[in-house]
Amino acid sequence: MASGTPPELTATDRTRVRRKRDRAVYRRDAINAIVDEGLICHVGFTHDGTTIVLPMAYGRVGDVLYLHGAAANAMLKTVGQGVEACVTITLVDSLVLARSAFHHSMNYRSAVLVGTAETVVDEAEKSRALAAVVEHMVPGRSADARPPTPKELVATSVVRFPIEEGSAKVRTGGPVDDDEDLALAVWAGQIPLELVARPPVPDTRLARDIALPAYAREYPDRGAAAGG
Amino acid sequence: MASGTPPELTATDRTRVRRKRDRAVYRRDAINAIVDEGLICHVGFTHDGTTIVLPMAYGRVGDVLYLHGAAANAMLKTVGQGVEACVTITLVDSLVLARSAFHHSMNYRSAVLVGTAETVVDEAEKSRALAAVVEHMVPGRSADARPPTPKELVATSVVRFPIEEGSAKVRTGGPVDDDEDLALAVWAGQIPLELVARPPVPDTRLARDIALPAYAREYPDRGAAAGG
Repeated sequence: MASGTPPELTATDRTRVRRKRDRAVYRRDAINAIVDEGLICHVGFTHDGTTIVLPMAYGRVGDVLYLHGAAANAMLKTVGQGVEACVTITLVDSLVLARSAFHHSMNYRSAVLVGTAETVVDEAEKSRALAAVVEHMVPGRSADARPPTPKELVATSVVRFPIEEGSAKVRTGGPVDDDEDLALAVWAGQIPLELVARPPVPDTRLARDIALPAYAREYPDRGAAAGG
Repeated sequence: MASGTPPELTATDRTRVRRKRDRAVYRRDAINAIVDEGLICHVGFTHDGTTIVLPMAYGRVGDVLYLHGAAANAMLKTVGQGVEACVTITLVDSLVLARSAFHHSMNYRSAVLVGTAETVVDEAEKSRALAAVVEHMVPGRSADARPPTPKELVATSVVRFPIEEGSAKVRTGGPVDDDEDLALAVWAGQIPLELVARPPVPDTRLARDIALPAYAREYPDRGAAAGG
C-alpha cells in the first residue's frame, strides 16, 4: 500500500452496506484480502441502456485492479472509455443450514467496488498489469511463462480500475434459529466449501522432460476451511 | 420445461456473444444446466445512475429464476419494481496454463441473462420459490427444514426473473499456444478446479440424537472434474 493511502475505502451512499450493517467491512486490507483470494470478478456496466454483468480474470497492484482482454473486447472498450463500472468479487465459505427454511443462509465474503476505469496505454504498466493477472491466477507462474511480445501487448487491452470506493460484506458463524425452533428434530449446522485444485493435466503436446512446477502441483485451496 | 418453450434463448444484440463466437451457447437445456450447477449468481442493475453488482442465492423453477431477500432489501425493491437486471452465473472449471503469458486462460461456463423481474405477490408461488432456493442450495433439504410461516413469507421478498433472453459462453480444452512456442521449456496444461464440501459442522446447540442427513454428508462436488 502506498504511504498516505487511507486505511478505509470511501463509503458513499451507493456503496455503504444498508442491510445487516454488522456485516459491513470498509478496511482496505480486509477488502484487498478478498480481492486477492478471489479467482474471478463480475464486472457490471451499462451500455446503451442495458446493464450487463460479465465474469473476468483480474490482477491487483496496490490500490489498482487490472482487467484485460482482447483489444477488440467490446466491454473493455466501453469500460475503458470512462463508463462507470462495478466490480464484485465473492467467496462462498459455507452453506448455513438452519432448522427453519427462513433462516437458511451462506457464509461469504464479498467486495463491491464502484469506479471509473481507464485504458492503460503505457507499455510498461501494461506489462506489469498482465504479469499481475497471470500471477493472481497462478502465483509463481509469471516468472516462468514467456512474457508478451510488443505485438501481443498491442493485441491486448488493459484497463485500470481504482480500488477506492466500495465496501465488503462478511457473514460468519452458524445458523441463527428462532428459540422456539431449537427443539425441532431437524439437523442444523454448516457445510464448509472449498475451491480445490485437482491433479494438473499436462498439455498433450508437452515434451516429456518438462517437470510439473511446484506452483501447479501445490496449487493452494481457496476458502475459509482452507484458512483463507 | 413447459411444452412450447423455445429450445433456444432469445439472442438479441445485447446478449449475442460477440468475441469467440465458437464458445457461444444458446440452447435452453445447456443454459439451465449452468444455472442449476451454480451456487450463487451475480445480479447487476442500475439505480440512480449507478450500476451495482451483488451476489445472491437463487432457485430455478422451469423457465423462471427466483431471487429472495428481506422485504426491506433495497436491491430487490428496485429490481422488483420492473428495473431491468442482468443475472450472471459463472462456473470456473480449470486454469489453463499456456507456454506464453498471452495465451493463459480459464475453462469456464457462464450464463448471462437479461430481463425485467417482478415481485411475487401470490403466497403459493412465494412458498414454491423459497423451497426452490433452499433446494437449489442443498438438494433434499427443503423437505426437512421447517417451512416458512405466513409472517415469515411477509418478511421475505421474492422476485421472478424470466430465463428468456440471454446466452452462455463455454471454454473447454487445453492451452492454445503459438506453434513457435511449443519448443519452450515451460510446463503447459490445466489445473482443474472443483468446489468441494468439507465435513459438515453441527450447530453448537444441536441435540445429540439428531443424525447428519445424507444430503449434508454426501453434498455433491461441483465442477467439470466432478462430472458437472
